[in-house]
Amino acid sequence: MTDLTPVLERADKNLPSSLDNLFELLRIKSISTDKDYKADCRKAAEWLAAYLKTVGFDASVRDTPGHPMVVAHHEAATPGAPHVLFYGHYDVQPVDPIELWENDPFAPSIKDVGDGRKILTGRGTSDDKGQLMTFVEACRAYNEIHGGLPVKITILFEGEEESGSPSLKPFLEANAAELKADYALVCDTTMWDAETPAIAASLRGMVAEEIVISAADRDLHSGFFGGAAANPIHILADVVAGLHDETGRVTLEGFYEGVEETPANIKASWDNLGSTAENFLGEVGLSIPSGERGRSVLELTWARPTAEVNGIWGGYTGPGFKTVIAAIASAKISFRLVGHQDPAAVRESFRAYVRSKIPADCSVEFHAHGGSPAIQLSYDSPVLTKAKNALSDEWPKPAIVIGMGGSIPIVGDFQRMLGMESLLVGFGLADDRIHSPNEKYEYNSYHKGIRSWIRILAALAA
Amino acid sequence: MTDLTPVLERADKNLPSSLDNLFELLRIKSISTDKDYKADCRKAAEWLAAYLKTVGFDASVRDTPGHPMVVAHHEAATPGAPHVLFYGHYDVQPVDPIELWENDPFAPSIKDVGDGRKILTGRGTSDDKGQLMTFVEACRAYNEIHGGLPVKITILFEGEEESGSPSLKPFLEANAAELKADYALVCDTTMWDAETPAIAASLRGMVAEEIVISAADRDLHSGFFGGAAANPIHILADVVAGLHDETGRVTLEGFYEGVEETPANIKASWDNLGSTAENFLGEVGLSIPSGERGRSVLELTWARPTAEVNGIWGGYTGPGFKTVIAAIASAKISFRLVGHQDPAAVRESFRAYVRSKIPADCSVEFHAHGGSPAIQLSYDSPVLTKAKNALSDEWPKPAIVIGMGGSIPIVGDFQRMLGMESLLVGFGLADDRIHSPNEKYEYNSYHKGIRSWIRILAALAA
Repeated sequence: MTDLTPVLERADKNLPSSLDNLFELLRIKSISTDKDYKADCRKAAEWLAAYLKTVGFDASVRDTPGHPMVVAHHEAATPGAPHVLFYGHYDVQPVDPIELWENDPFAPSIKDVGDGRKILTGRGTSDDKGQLMTFVEACRAYNEIHGGLPVKITILFEGEEESGSPSLKPFLEANAAELKADYALVCDTTMWDAETPAIAASLRGMVAEEIVISAADRDLHSGFFGGAAANPIHILADVVAGLHDETGRVTLEGFYEGVEETPANIKASWDNLGSTAENFLGEVGLSIPSGERGRSVLELTWARPTAEVNGIWGGYTGPGFKTVIAAIASAKISFRLVGHQDPAAVRESFRAYVRSKIPADCSVEFHAHGGSPAIQLSYDSPVLTKAKNALSDEWPKPAIVIGMGGSIPIVGDFQRMLGMESLLVGFGLADDRIHSPNEKYEYNSYHKGIRSWIRILAALAA
Repeated sequence: MTDLTPVLERADKNLPSSLDNLFELLRIKSISTDKDYKADCRKAAEWLAAYLKTVGFDASVRDTPGHPMVVAHHEAATPGAPHVLFYGHYDVQPVDPIELWENDPFAPSIKDVGDGRKILTGRGTSDDKGQLMTFVEACRAYNEIHGGLPVKITILFEGEEESGSPSLKPFLEANAAELKADYALVCDTTMWDAETPAIAASLRGMVAEEIVISAADRDLHSGFFGGAAANPIHILADVVAGLHDETGRVTLEGFYEGVEETPANIKASWDNLGSTAENFLGEVGLSIPSGERGRSVLELTWARPTAEVNGIWGGYTGPGFKTVIAAIASAKISFRLVGHQDPAAVRESFRAYVRSKIPADCSVEFHAHGGSPAIQLSYDSPVLTKAKNALSDEWPKPAIVIGMGGSIPIVGDFQRMLGMESLLVGFGLADDRIHSPNEKYEYNSYHKGIRSWIRILAALAA
């Protein structure tokens, strides 16, 4: 059961059909934030449940008030083997601006990009369909060779990760007994670089808010009213401009409560990775760190909290010019959290700050878009060590333990609701353009990702 | 020829057909800022030329690189009578947000709003189709009764007033000899209130700019890059927030050069009009003047310069939430000018200010959307006095001389290019919702507007 060589060979032999399977899933437009794609989300869930059955799982689609979950079970070949819960999400981000895509986001392709490197193109290749399929295909190869799996596996795929996971907590609560395992495996993270696998030990949390500032009861002509009537875009700009001080720190009252300085030895290990502002930001055409002064880009993105406006709109935004003073102005604003920052406290502090900026004859509405605390995993658990060694066997360079700037709220939910730690292993790269046009996944990430999970499953059983 | 009574009676008798004529024009969707309506703009010009011919004018549609002009001529019945140029515009503002309209903007109607008051509904009723037709219908009544007009009249209707009039100056230049008159009559302004006609003696100028701030070369995931990568929405917010100081003054260097304090006696006459912040702003649901502290709302909107953001957009603005750091952020910003402010200098000062706010690894593009200086007419010209008396004869209350907050660049062009002063008489009201959903024009404005022009034409000939 722990004889790896034939399983790895089978995964290599399966690769063409493993790609076909992934592409079938990628063609389904499972955009969870847009209700026009509700049926596509269900279709993706149904496709996954059907496919998991062919791989030997007892799989089912489970309805929720939103998009459905997929739950699947597979016993271990040996009694007493560990029980792991594997988590992924089948929903994807919207694709706008569609005109910036070089290929149809929902017509995946394999693209040769030179130097023997190939990529898989399309929405969801990296976030998260490609990643979750590495695990499913690992299970398939294992089952085909050994007629069983080395650990007991429960799979949970959700369809609302990109839209705040409104159904997840109730679902975990209602199905806690079924879903509880010894620990969770979560595949929604990146490698350090194309040769170096990584396990994430910290994850930033998030608070997301939408605000709508209202001034006059209609759009006004700026000739008649300009200079006298409040302009909600100006008020919104003041709100945004006041979120940071001149050193890049967030100004909200109590914002840094629960934020701890990263230990010096961890910071030193990050400094040794050789990631400078020039190479980290140079990849996206920038060069100057914009956040808190005097901190490295890795510390800024892995271990420091942020406030970012993710969208802003108000007034006339079409072609030409319209001399209007808008009635309303809106923004979507998110905060990345670290350490023990309390999402509810950050949300309340933000709302109090915004209210303090609103003139007496104007008003503001708030719409919460989800929140989750940060996660800090133990650096020395045996599970982490086993996975680190298994990954190091597969890839050219040894695996490293890193922080992650993004939020994976499920990890906090597993911790709080099911009492489970999570092992965060993923094969994405920083330049995968997830959430942007031209998302891709390395062909190599898919192939060696499958092989990595085979190794990890064997290691976890040992 | 100056016997008014039968002409006024004829205008009254004509009113139903005058309304039919206006409604035909209003049904044409002549939105000049949107190229999808190019054919509609031409149709409006052709309709006007055809109608002016039936009223006795020698009228033609004149091509320009943009939307066409309408030019029409009519000799005076008496040699040596003054020659006036009447100006109006047949193009209208876009209608978005269309869902806020209670009636189809291009299906005009007469609506009884109670207390014997009726309004004409639809885009362009007040700005400017309804206004320009008051003059045409006055000419028609005159011609029907007297078989001639008391003054020599040239008419110029343009179709690009709402989109910065790009063809106007070249057209004035190329046709200066044909268009030059003793003075111009411009009908694109408002009354003081529904009973009190007004003649505008000052008009604010305008500079309009669109800016596009670029940071990263693609949209970024705020998890990976948040805290390290520049966010162009933050930069834009800083630009906007820094445009005004805490007293409401515009901060641009040299902005107030050429701005003179309004003479005390003029300010006093405005104060006597009884327009308070509460009633001026109360009409649109506001109560607190937002501009420079310590000035009345009339002074703020008639005699002080402003900076206003008319539109802002960047990042994800659709349903749900997307944790993106945008690659670009944009705004449309306009400045209202007074006195002798130089539009070119204001534009350059603004651009220098914006550039000073852009980090070294980001960039900004500027797109000019037209500019014109402010206008200040003489308070004591004979023409103004004649018109004031004629208006006072028609309406329940005597006419007053006011300032106007909006820009009418044509007035400056007439002054500079044709050496003509303009007489600004209009019958709009402040609550006509021009540039907004549910634009309307008072039925009474249309009826008494026609009668007013009959009286003014007679007065100017005297």
